[in-house]
Amino acid sequence: MEIRIVKQILEWNEDVSSDIIKELDEKKVCLINLMGSPGAGKTSLIKKLIEALKDRYRIGIIEGDVAGQIDAETIEALGIPVVQLQTDGACHIEALSIQNILPMFDTGDLDVLIVENIGNLVCPAEFNIGEDFRITVLSVPEGDDKVVKYPLMFRATDALVINKSDVLPYFDFDPDRVRRDERDVNPDAPVFAVSSRTGEGIGEFADWLDRRIAYKLSNGHVLRKPIFSE
Amino acid sequence: MEIRIVKQILEWNEDVSSDIIKELDEKKVCLINLMGSPGAGKTSLIKKLIEALKDRYRIGIIEGDVAGQIDAETIEALGIPVVQLQTDGACHIEALSIQNILPMFDTGDLDVLIVENIGNLVCPAEFNIGEDFRITVLSVPEGDDKVVKYPLMFRATDALVINKSDVLPYFDFDPDRVRRDERDVNPDAPVFAVSSRTGEGIGEFADWLDRRIAYKLSNGHVLRKPIFSE
Repeated sequence: MEIRIVKQILEWNEDVSSDIIKELDEKKVCLINLMGSPGAGKTSLIKKLIEALKDRYRIGIIEGDVAGQIDAETIEALGIPVVQLQTDGACHIEALSIQNILPMFDTGDLDVLIVENIGNLVCPAEFNIGEDFRITVLSVPEGDDKVVKYPLMFRATDALVINKSDVLPYFDFDPDRVRRDERDVNPDAPVFAVSSRTGEGIGEFADWLDRRIAYKLSNGHVLRKPIFSE
Repeated sequence: MEIRIVKQILEWNEDVSSDIIKELDEKKVCLINLMGSPGAGKTSLIKKLIEALKDRYRIGIIEGDVAGQIDAETIEALGIPVVQLQTDGACHIEALSIQNILPMFDTGDLDVLIVENIGNLVCPAEFNIGEDFRITVLSVPEGDDKVVKYPLMFRATDALVINKSDVLPYFDFDPDRVRRDERDVNPDAPVFAVSSRTGEGIGEFADWLDRRIAYKLSNGHVLRKPIFSE
């Protein structure tokens, strides 16, 4: 399978996000926006989710990176359709880029499209890309103070995944503090502790994801609460 | 000591950076821009640098965060003058904010001012803040592929610090790969492996920093190569 590479157009339109939602509702595709710091383990998590969900759903991936195509190569090796989006320095993915990429997938043959956003705890949270829901990944080595320090990212997500739980013994990281802080800014979002390396906790998270995807595919887009409301 | 909090004005001017350089040359203050991912250990590294350099230089700190003041409290507890800059959601620090903050320090009583930028491997690299030099921190848990994935940050820096080297045994991280990748994009930048937790490697890095600071204080600002030149 060939990896296609798209350069992001630096012209952005919030309305495009609504158009994408309409288009994917018609085509019955669930769009997931996966966000987190550089090195939080987003690609490794996607690999585990593909393993867990590929028998139930036809999955496609959009790999967002500032440069390069390492992540797309990783996914392509699994035989999953993937497009590498290069933002050429931009710190987030814009809805227009997703709209331009959609025709590159045979969306009639897709149930789930996962977008791996740029590694960044700030800007991606400010840009809707037509997603049905958002997942934020926080890894143990980043520290347990990140919800307080980057509140928008954690307020604007539908689920928080604490990744790299296998290295908890080597870091001063209190998962209960993260759960408490997350409940403060975003009481509805479930928090999952997983390790993409050992597979620990992936089952529970994949089950939640499975239910959310199934719901969307039966009922269409579920309006998220506005990101910036307090 | 009271922690002062400044809200970043979202109006930015590249020329301000040059004004800051002139002002700090006159006042003989060395401005250091410290950048890296969320959770890379920037604040812990600053604490170690304060320990190593405080007998030779009078140090001040500007703590940049999207929200909160956790990091400023950490520094303030060391008896070091600190201002907390809150960007209110913005993903990088702008030169105007630094210019507005400078009068809050008694710059006549300062030799070194370290700015801890927002945790972000993308945007901060695009904004000069009047710094004499830049330091980029990459921590082991983030992975050894970051130079390739976020090239501007690693091209635009004057030194690369690989932090959290104490957890190398628990991660698939090849420091030689990082050194090679860094040499490819930025052949002049030295690479230091340190642990802010154990103190390993801090001495060598602090010695380099000491020489750079001393040079600047004797000779004035040394023009960095333009960031975006290829």
